Amino acid sequence: MLAVSPYNQLALSGVGPIKDIKIFDTTLRDGEQAPGIALSPEDKIRIALALDDLGVDYIEAGFAASGQTEKETITKLSGMKLDARICSLARTVKSDIDAVIDAGVDLVHTFIATSDLHMKYKLKMTPEEVRAKAIETVEYAKAHGLEVQFSCEDSTRSNLDFMKAILLDVQNAGASSVNIPDTVGVIIPRAMERLIGELHKTLSIPISVHCHNDMGLAVANTIAAVDAGATICHVCMNGIGERAGNASLEEVALNLFANYRVQTVDLSKIGSASKVVERVTGFALAGNKPIVGRNAFAHESGIHVHGIMNNTSTYEPFLPELIGVDRHIVIGKHSGVHSVRGRLDSLGIRFPNDHMNELMETIKNIAIGGKMIDDAELLAIVDNILWKKETLEKTVSLDELTVLTGKNTTSTATVSVTMGDGERRTAAETGVGPVDAAINAIRKSINEKITMEEYKLSAITGKSDSICEVTVMLKNVQNDGSLTVGKAVGLDIVETSVDATMAAINRDFARRRRE
Amino acid sequence: MLAVSPYNQLALSGVGPIKDIKIFDTTLRDGEQAPGIALSPEDKIRIALALDDLGVDYIEAGFAASGQTEKETITKLSGMKLDARICSLARTVKSDIDAVIDAGVDLVHTFIATSDLHMKYKLKMTPEEVRAKAIETVEYAKAHGLEVQFSCEDSTRSNLDFMKAILLDVQNAGASSVNIPDTVGVIIPRAMERLIGELHKTLSIPISVHCHNDMGLAVANTIAAVDAGATICHVCMNGIGERAGNASLEEVALNLFANYRVQTVDLSKIGSASKVVERVTGFALAGNKPIVGRNAFAHESGIHVHGIMNNTSTYEPFLPELIGVDRHIVIGKHSGVHSVRGRLDSLGIRFPNDHMNELMETIKNIAIGGKMIDDAELLAIVDNILWKKETLEKTVSLDELTVLTGKNTTSTATVSVTMGDGERRTAAETGVGPVDAAINAIRKSINEKITMEEYKLSAITGKSDSICEVTVMLKNVQNDGSLTVGKAVGLDIVETSVDATMAAINRDFARRRRE
Repeated sequence: MLAVSPYNQLALSGVGPIKDIKIFDTTLRDGEQAPGIALSPEDKIRIALALDDLGVDYIEAGFAASGQTEKETITKLSGMKLDARICSLARTVKSDIDAVIDAGVDLVHTFIATSDLHMKYKLKMTPEEVRAKAIETVEYAKAHGLEVQFSCEDSTRSNLDFMKAILLDVQNAGASSVNIPDTVGVIIPRAMERLIGELHKTLSIPISVHCHNDMGLAVANTIAAVDAGATICHVCMNGIGERAGNASLEEVALNLFANYRVQTVDLSKIGSASKVVERVTGFALAGNKPIVGRNAFAHESGIHVHGIMNNTSTYEPFLPELIGVDRHIVIGKHSGVHSVRGRLDSLGIRFPNDHMNELMETIKNIAIGGKMIDDAELLAIVDNILWKKETLEKTVSLDELTVLTGKNTTSTATVSVTMGDGERRTAAETGVGPVDAAINAIRKSINEKITMEEYKLSAITGKSDSICEVTVMLKNVQNDGSLTVGKAVGLDIVETSVDATMAAINRDFARRRRE
Repeated sequence: MLAVSPYNQLALSGVGPIKDIKIFDTTLRDGEQAPGIALSPEDKIRIALALDDLGVDYIEAGFAASGQTEKETITKLSGMKLDARICSLARTVKSDIDAVIDAGVDLVHTFIATSDLHMKYKLKMTPEEVRAKAIETVEYAKAHGLEVQFSCEDSTRSNLDFMKAILLDVQNAGASSVNIPDTVGVIIPRAMERLIGELHKTLSIPISVHCHNDMGLAVANTIAAVDAGATICHVCMNGIGERAGNASLEEVALNLFANYRVQTVDLSKIGSASKVVERVTGFALAGNKPIVGRNAFAHESGIHVHGIMNNTSTYEPFLPELIGVDRHIVIGKHSGVHSVRGRLDSLGIRFPNDHMNELMETIKNIAIGGKMIDDAELLAIVDNILWKKETLEKTVSLDELTVLTGKNTTSTATVSVTMGDGERRTAAETGVGPVDAAINAIRKSINEKITMEEYKLSAITGKSDSICEVTVMLKNVQNDGSLTVGKAVGLDIVETSVDATMAAINRDFARRRRE
């Protein structure tokens, strides 16, 4: 189910019809140009396969003239016979077009700036020189069998009459489509609509649009261009790209689907394609990224969770299944009783009503700092409330810990613990490092089959005496296989790791004693 | 300088005049409701101070009825006599309004849903019941001296005639403003413009707008509402909020400034306010976040850096100084010779032209994976190319390392090193933990005044025998104060930290030897 505003259809009554919109993906070209992204040839292939599977029409694979490796990668992608047509960027320079010809692609996307600012300060060329260069390049590419898309770089700050003239020239020279980039992200939707409308009246070949998100308007501008007759959308998965990035593929595709019923790609693969791009580029999505961010279908606040439980449309624009992702009901500071009760039920816990206020208060306090409380942690909190005495009383206490480590030295730890019944035990163990050795020694001393399921050390930036935070999750294999979490904060990484482990062990012992 | 499209003014000729737009910041209420954010009372005060300094008109500080701590925090903020007016959210429920009255705020923002969907599935109330509740609540709040803003929750899916009726009712009941939330982010700009235009004709009190970013249109919708007569914008710093978040304060403010010359806040404080909110909430900005993301004014690709060097307007919508942030020229895979040469010049390095190709190739290779090459690393690469032999040859080698640590034990390290001239030195030192002790001992043994400027341990999730990656940055205080970076990867955190330190020391020695 898809929730749209009834006001949208009314407002769109004069627009359209909108159909046959092509997705021109430039994740591997403009996306890769983002500072902090640099893809290996194998990286590009992995992403191209995901994009092809998603069903984009064009893949701009890179900038062939930028280097030998880049050209080889584009050549490889061209040879893979994907459904998507492969494109390379090129300046209006003969050597750039030659590199594209060598790469064997279907399409060249060639560009030259047409704004006074770019012509004067960057190109240092007159408008007539720019116009001649554009025509010459399109003719040359065309003569060598390439399909050509021509871009007026910085279109949205270019003179309209000059652009019309140059675009008609390249149309006559054989270009298959023209592209209108909002290079610096400075146009507004109603202006984009007028600009594209003007060009649409002038040209007979398809118009493409390429919007940057500097002012947060890339998606709105792309849709405004489509409203005015553009039929090709330059987009990047996850909205990556130069500076604030390009119009995001997933946001453009969902907008076209929601309001025009135009299905440009296989929407159900958006979630997985987004993850591939995030993982391979290493460029992290914000939690609040529209459509694909981890919070896009996450709900925590009481009012929202209550609404979602009754009818998901109350607080979701569409079902997460549409794009192949899941909903998350998060327990945190803003959770209401409905959420917590629902989660406890799903965990099979019968929690007494008369302790509910205390549980809610504890959750609110623990969650300060932004902690999202997972199942294991919720169980630990429930334990603390229901069995307070037991968890305050330590079952196992650590009396002594000595760790020896170094270069060409096997890390070795010795521990002494006192068990709940007063028995004192000592054990020594080795490990791959001091933390591993210390934890192995503790496990040996308490003589239980406990495995460490997760060890998490929070990132530390500072000097070598910085604070570290360690969270461990232990599994008691010997008994019921239950998970227990322990956490500690401190200066010494070995001691902090041991403290977290001891906290988890004590919690596990306390829980089992009362069962 | 501000770059706008000349097409914008043409398109806006029929709009306006736009002036006296108020910023209603809801970072501390809707922003905080984002899963993963939970603020302590002190956190809220820190953010409120930054927002007040920025110059927002209203601060929605929270939801007073949601808990005792929340109410106390709002009370405290109300008592701080900020320039911004303090507001609390409330349902149209008497006890919620009572909590707001207790908190002593200026303004209550009370809401009830008006869409059929929300009334039927969430509220389980008839439209007439909703209307009565709205009037009764506004009258009650008004009678207790509160200024009232009333919201029709899910306005963009509500019946227009019903909304008009209820909004006229609350206007008559004494509300000072009404708010139109696009609760699920489902409206499009042209529809928002028509909706607000209709309401503007009906009402005499100010209209506010509250847009969510589920479809990536929150900012465009907010501006469309302003075009149609709305004069209050609900926004969150960094665009945080439920799901995909709210319209971002910084994007709305910059759009209003760029195209309408309306200065809503002190723009020069946007950069710092954004950082306060990011740090305190712990909710990380995406690298490509418009306006305030780390890439918003970062340039790496050759063509863009070349343009920026000639005239920043070629590839920047406005100067970063406008919002109090800096530009970054990043060296990475896409860098051209212009960038690298410029950076070397700024570092005072005369790098020979005949090695430039080798340098560019090395940079491209190292950068694969998305590494951005900082000054220290660029220096190391230059060293490697110019002085290959020297850097391969170790100046100081570590022969022995023993570390003793534990509980109630002062971490102690002993090292033996061989210096370049064959001299063997041994030293012991203590530290707050094993890593600190080991690094202290090394510094003592080499007998140079080296300080550790940065120690970075990458986050580890796995078991206790996981791989860790350590990067250190050392400063040689004794000599020229230069910085040197070392990096190592390994299983043992102590040994890996020591390896990284030794790598940095050797690089520092090699550099100084040839100078």
